[in-house]
Amino acid sequence: MRILLSLALVISGTAAAQTTVPAPIDAVDPMIGTGGEGHTFPGATAPFGMVQLSPDTDTSCEIRACYGHAAGYRFEDPTIQGFSHTHFSGAGHSDLGDVLVMPQAGEQVRLDPGDPRRPGSGYRSRFDHASEVARPGYYAVTLADHDIRAELTAGTRIGVHRYSFPAGRAAHLLIDLRTSLYNYPGKILWSGLHLRPDGTLTGFRETRGWAPGRKLYFAMRFSAPLTGHAFVDRDTAVAYKGFQGPGRGSDAVAEKLGRALEAQLDFGRLTAPLEVRVALSGVDEAGAVANLDAEPGGFDAIRGATAQAWAKALGAIEIDAPAPMRTNVYTALYHALLAPSVWSDADGRYRGPDDQVHVAKGFTFRSTFSLWDTFRAEHPLLTLVQPAQTTVDVVRSLVESRRHSPYGILPVWQFAGRETWTMIGYHAAPVIADAYLKGIRGFDADAALDAMVASADYAPYGGLGDYIARGYVAIDKEPEAASKTVEYAYDDWTIARMARAMGRTQIADRFERRAGYWRNSFDASTGWVRARLSSGAFRTPFDPTAINYGSDYTEGNAWQYSWFMPQDEAGLIRLLGGDAKAIAKLDAMFDYDNSKLDYSHAEDIAGLIGQYIHGNEPSHHVAYLYNFAGAPWRTQERLAQIVASQYKPAPDGLAGNDDLGQMSAWLVFTALGFYPVAPGSNEYVIGRPFVDRAMLNLPGGKRFTVIADGLSATNRYVAGVTLNGAALERSYIRDEEVRAGGELRFTMSASPNKLWGSGEAARPFSMSKR
Amino acid sequence: MRILLSLALVISGTAAAQTTVPAPIDAVDPMIGTGGEGHTFPGATAPFGMVQLSPDTDTSCEIRACYGHAAGYRFEDPTIQGFSHTHFSGAGHSDLGDVLVMPQAGEQVRLDPGDPRRPGSGYRSRFDHASEVARPGYYAVTLADHDIRAELTAGTRIGVHRYSFPAGRAAHLLIDLRTSLYNYPGKILWSGLHLRPDGTLTGFRETRGWAPGRKLYFAMRFSAPLTGHAFVDRDTAVAYKGFQGPGRGSDAVAEKLGRALEAQLDFGRLTAPLEVRVALSGVDEAGAVANLDAEPGGFDAIRGATAQAWAKALGAIEIDAPAPMRTNVYTALYHALLAPSVWSDADGRYRGPDDQVHVAKGFTFRSTFSLWDTFRAEHPLLTLVQPAQTTVDVVRSLVESRRHSPYGILPVWQFAGRETWTMIGYHAAPVIADAYLKGIRGFDADAALDAMVASADYAPYGGLGDYIARGYVAIDKEPEAASKTVEYAYDDWTIARMARAMGRTQIADRFERRAGYWRNSFDASTGWVRARLSSGAFRTPFDPTAINYGSDYTEGNAWQYSWFMPQDEAGLIRLLGGDAKAIAKLDAMFDYDNSKLDYSHAEDIAGLIGQYIHGNEPSHHVAYLYNFAGAPWRTQERLAQIVASQYKPAPDGLAGNDDLGQMSAWLVFTALGFYPVAPGSNEYVIGRPFVDRAMLNLPGGKRFTVIADGLSATNRYVAGVTLNGAALERSYIRDEEVRAGGELRFTMSASPNKLWGSGEAARPFSMSKR
Repeated sequence: MRILLSLALVISGTAAAQTTVPAPIDAVDPMIGTGGEGHTFPGATAPFGMVQLSPDTDTSCEIRACYGHAAGYRFEDPTIQGFSHTHFSGAGHSDLGDVLVMPQAGEQVRLDPGDPRRPGSGYRSRFDHASEVARPGYYAVTLADHDIRAELTAGTRIGVHRYSFPAGRAAHLLIDLRTSLYNYPGKILWSGLHLRPDGTLTGFRETRGWAPGRKLYFAMRFSAPLTGHAFVDRDTAVAYKGFQGPGRGSDAVAEKLGRALEAQLDFGRLTAPLEVRVALSGVDEAGAVANLDAEPGGFDAIRGATAQAWAKALGAIEIDAPAPMRTNVYTALYHALLAPSVWSDADGRYRGPDDQVHVAKGFTFRSTFSLWDTFRAEHPLLTLVQPAQTTVDVVRSLVESRRHSPYGILPVWQFAGRETWTMIGYHAAPVIADAYLKGIRGFDADAALDAMVASADYAPYGGLGDYIARGYVAIDKEPEAASKTVEYAYDDWTIARMARAMGRTQIADRFERRAGYWRNSFDASTGWVRARLSSGAFRTPFDPTAINYGSDYTEGNAWQYSWFMPQDEAGLIRLLGGDAKAIAKLDAMFDYDNSKLDYSHAEDIAGLIGQYIHGNEPSHHVAYLYNFAGAPWRTQERLAQIVASQYKPAPDGLAGNDDLGQMSAWLVFTALGFYPVAPGSNEYVIGRPFVDRAMLNLPGGKRFTVIADGLSATNRYVAGVTLNGAALERSYIRDEEVRAGGELRFTMSASPNKLWGSGEAARPFSMSKR
Repeated sequence: MRILLSLALVISGTAAAQTTVPAPIDAVDPMIGTGGEGHTFPGATAPFGMVQLSPDTDTSCEIRACYGHAAGYRFEDPTIQGFSHTHFSGAGHSDLGDVLVMPQAGEQVRLDPGDPRRPGSGYRSRFDHASEVARPGYYAVTLADHDIRAELTAGTRIGVHRYSFPAGRAAHLLIDLRTSLYNYPGKILWSGLHLRPDGTLTGFRETRGWAPGRKLYFAMRFSAPLTGHAFVDRDTAVAYKGFQGPGRGSDAVAEKLGRALEAQLDFGRLTAPLEVRVALSGVDEAGAVANLDAEPGGFDAIRGATAQAWAKALGAIEIDAPAPMRTNVYTALYHALLAPSVWSDADGRYRGPDDQVHVAKGFTFRSTFSLWDTFRAEHPLLTLVQPAQTTVDVVRSLVESRRHSPYGILPVWQFAGRETWTMIGYHAAPVIADAYLKGIRGFDADAALDAMVASADYAPYGGLGDYIARGYVAIDKEPEAASKTVEYAYDDWTIARMARAMGRTQIADRFERRAGYWRNSFDASTGWVRARLSSGAFRTPFDPTAINYGSDYTEGNAWQYSWFMPQDEAGLIRLLGGDAKAIAKLDAMFDYDNSKLDYSHAEDIAGLIGQYIHGNEPSHHVAYLYNFAGAPWRTQERLAQIVASQYKPAPDGLAGNDDLGQMSAWLVFTALGFYPVAPGSNEYVIGRPFVDRAMLNLPGGKRFTVIADGLSATNRYVAGVTLNGAALERSYIRDEEVRAGGELRFTMSASPNKLWGSGEAARPFSMSKR
């Protein structure tokens, strides 16, 4: 409440007049990223909520088309197929889209979604963006073909629908358990519908998608009594139908099991809007019912509670900036507060990586870990804005997941408690180490370190055995060997850092050695990180611009990966021949003429500035590397170039997949003027702020304020920096300085201050700092 | 122990010399029924055990062939495919055959079962019946193609394998999760294998068979360490394979999920037999592990404990008879003690009819309820030989199942906690009423009666709404209407009886009225029970010999069903025109010339004596009906005819499906000289004994002894009967007389005593007793 009230009184940065600045929640535009490459969803969700209740415009996609519909909704689509309860925010690969609900009015209920290319066909409905409202925790749209106003809100484990049906026409809901995102044939393994005597509809679905054998349960209650219902199985390929239930030919079917189920629910003519409360559970239907009971209240009550929750969560940062930038940054913060989302039930039970039910004691089990993306800036951001609730939950969930992993290792890319083995590395390690090194407690650090070591020593994983034995992953034995080598080395460094801090010296020593293994994949003769054969030779032919699956690199090429040694950028610069050569190489990357390149065969390669690819993660720290070469003013220039070209307050405003908050967290940090190039270093590399003023509300009432004096489109350079009033000569700040509260004040100018941050002592952390 | 010792000293019925009679366990031949139509299995199981570990000779069957392989093993088959852990005893329809294990020796491990028509193909093995040993709780066979001696035993929730591999050859096990009984395409929905760090193999399978969406979990431990393993997915139709785990190309795969999984387990060269302990659970893998821990011990220990359990269970009846009959009856008792089997885990958790996990508090949840069969004699037998343990468990499980039924009604044909909706009626009602009326307590009688009423009033079920409204099920609205009408009326009578005994008068009055509804389906003009149209007319054309699915009758015709009013046989006889006409009609049934009839299109129509079909249940009480017409001597003749032709101590010794003990329970009762024609009446109709002497060991140390003085093949008639020394003139005895202990003594003779039991007062219970 304090936040909402205070923000309404904030004086805008211009200081010209007292104008009312919208509250953070009103500055968020969930439509950003729903077009273009963002893969975000516009629907309703609570912070880190288990439920993401959102419209799907097309679930009929084939493999290639699926990519664009990873979040179910594309801004440019003309129809809405229905509202489903689970969505990733900005994933490249996808799944989910569970329990699709579509309201219909009148006598005829359509059972098929129709063709997305033919608006008016099936149960889908045309809609007008002008009728849409998308706010944190609230979404509304008018379904033109059905003349129904649809509103959605969500709590932590529930979604609530409100449908206003046209007067005088019978109200129906269709529940389609056949639809799913990335719906490959055979994906739906089994599903069920149960109508309970008290009118609660429960059910489940097991899918074989990105997560193999994922189970999801739901419970649904209605504000009006059912006047009729029908459960239908649309499966035509059932060899054995068995006995069909007690009511042969009757409509009093309380249960239906199958692989292609739909429920038609009839409510007759209603005099008030129909509210539908839906809870999810990964455990069982009883869990879903209990989750429904755990969050009582009608549509408006849930909407209000979730608005409060969003106001609190977004209030972690108070921002003054012109409206477009303020919208960009608050929307980015919003997107950064969606995952890792809650997965345990209200009673603590959750389904873990072994598909068994466990109980989270003293914490909330989180899942949706897109760790290859999020270890970079998303988790470091959460250590500042959600240190207690989310970060501790995350660490405990990671360690618990390792306990229940069939392989005894930490999650790689986990959702719904299930491991998907997507992407590379063991980046749960930097997430845990970063939290621990920043002083965040509330978990068993020894168990956490043991889990990190177990993951780093699990030989069968991605060539790790070879990496441990030779110091690098050999490309003739394992694909993407160059990327794996350098990412493993970074992860190893974070393990060493945490072990050192804990006094577990043997582990620290061993992993410090491994942290240097990035050099084994560095070709000093050419200056590239490259894949080596087991013979020791670098693989040829070599093309630093090639991006292919199973190639030497992971979703990238030598241009991006040759900068991936966050723990030792100084070491790299020395190998490259010093600052000037390093700066020249960085410039060559940004200024590369890519007009002849075609990366359309590779997913998530978007947002290109030369060979800098902002739409994908390997580039994310690269603009900040000029600081390591003593040229922060060049970082400042590149950041202006990136922010201007890669973010805008529009549906196509994200240059690439938001990747569960990583693209967004990059912007939040960058807008504040600093960025965690090497999580685990406890340092943030200073770039330049993009907001006039920002205040981080930290635990214990502490505040860390960033002020950008004189900031404008012209004044894009940092003339000088003070920390708590004293001049700051180094081009980084320490996490403890932020966490202590204080003021970081930038003086912006139109011309660069090439001296600031240029000295050796000013440069950020590096293992082999000169 | 007492039983084992005392039986060794029993003097045989001939009294000629003191000969040692084998203990009951040694008189059981589990091979009986494994050929012919019996559908029993020869493998190892404990009394009412969750695990039935038994060889499968052919799981590759197509629909029609499946029928003969309902229990996995057919005596005439030349090969064994493997040993799986779940089997029905004598079911007509089938499912199960879960977690098939096959040992193999040598370097080459075969992954496919081969063709049952081509011995020597695949991993299946030829075998010689001479190498087989089948005993209660123990089975052994030599797998000739692999030179492996295989032994099986079982506890309550575990099976234990012991394999003696040929010296000097590598030992392997193949676990094939693809195989199943009644294995229709698409039956296996999903399955998983997990190798845990401690060497425990766990896994699960979900199948869409007779029970829709049945889940079964297992845990497996080995007496020797694994030297290697491979999990393979043989599914060729996977559209989306996703990411395949952490160990690309590695053999260190700890987990595999899919629809066609196999595990190859390697043990190297062993110097001792390999023991494999396997537990099942319907709850989860942790439940299976806990069940494994709950029954510790190696092969010999489990075998010994289960032999003790069988000695105790079979010791409920001590029998003197010539060896063939003794084998027949003890094997029948053995078969009667297999179901309803344990379904809850050692910790009480079980998966119920709603597919959710519940906890059985204070009882063991039982499943495998073949109620249409077993309400007749199997459950009444259990009230005598297992009144406390099994009968109370059964009643509580039925009532609990109703609580968790999506329809709020009692089980119809349930196994693994899942309803299959097989057969007709609500025959849980007579099971519960029979137990209650016999004074068995330990359950909530009011909740039980409420459940019975709810089931009887559930309008959508099998035309019940129509039955309630008109007094009969109308054949133009519901198939098998004649059978349904008369079976409902009998079930209603049992509800009335229990309600009356409890003082719940309104229910008693209402259901007493309904108990007379059998008359609404009786055509007095022809003397047949027939199906009526909703117009009131009997359906034509009418052929009393026709047996068809969906016809007027259920697995039968007018010949059998015209006798189905166990609650009111006197009323029937009056409608038929009196004793002489009833006897003539009974004789016409038994003496019918069926040589021109072909019932091969209908399952389970076997064991024909005219139109009396002993292989299926509707006939089971019919031979006893002469007693109701004052002619017990005719019953005595017919029983001799049935026993001689329908039971023998040989693999094809059962005339029809044992139906989870009903065929067997018929023989146990009949051998003792009495039979429960109308469970709920607390009366047993006296036939004639087939054993020289039998002693029922009842609770509290009471004993009820049956003695057949002068019994021989010639002396097949009852000359007279005494009960506790006093002449018994009536042709029935009361349950309380049995339960009190005492002596029922028959004097057998070569000629009938037509006077005995002929008077009106001598006749058994009937609603409208004259």
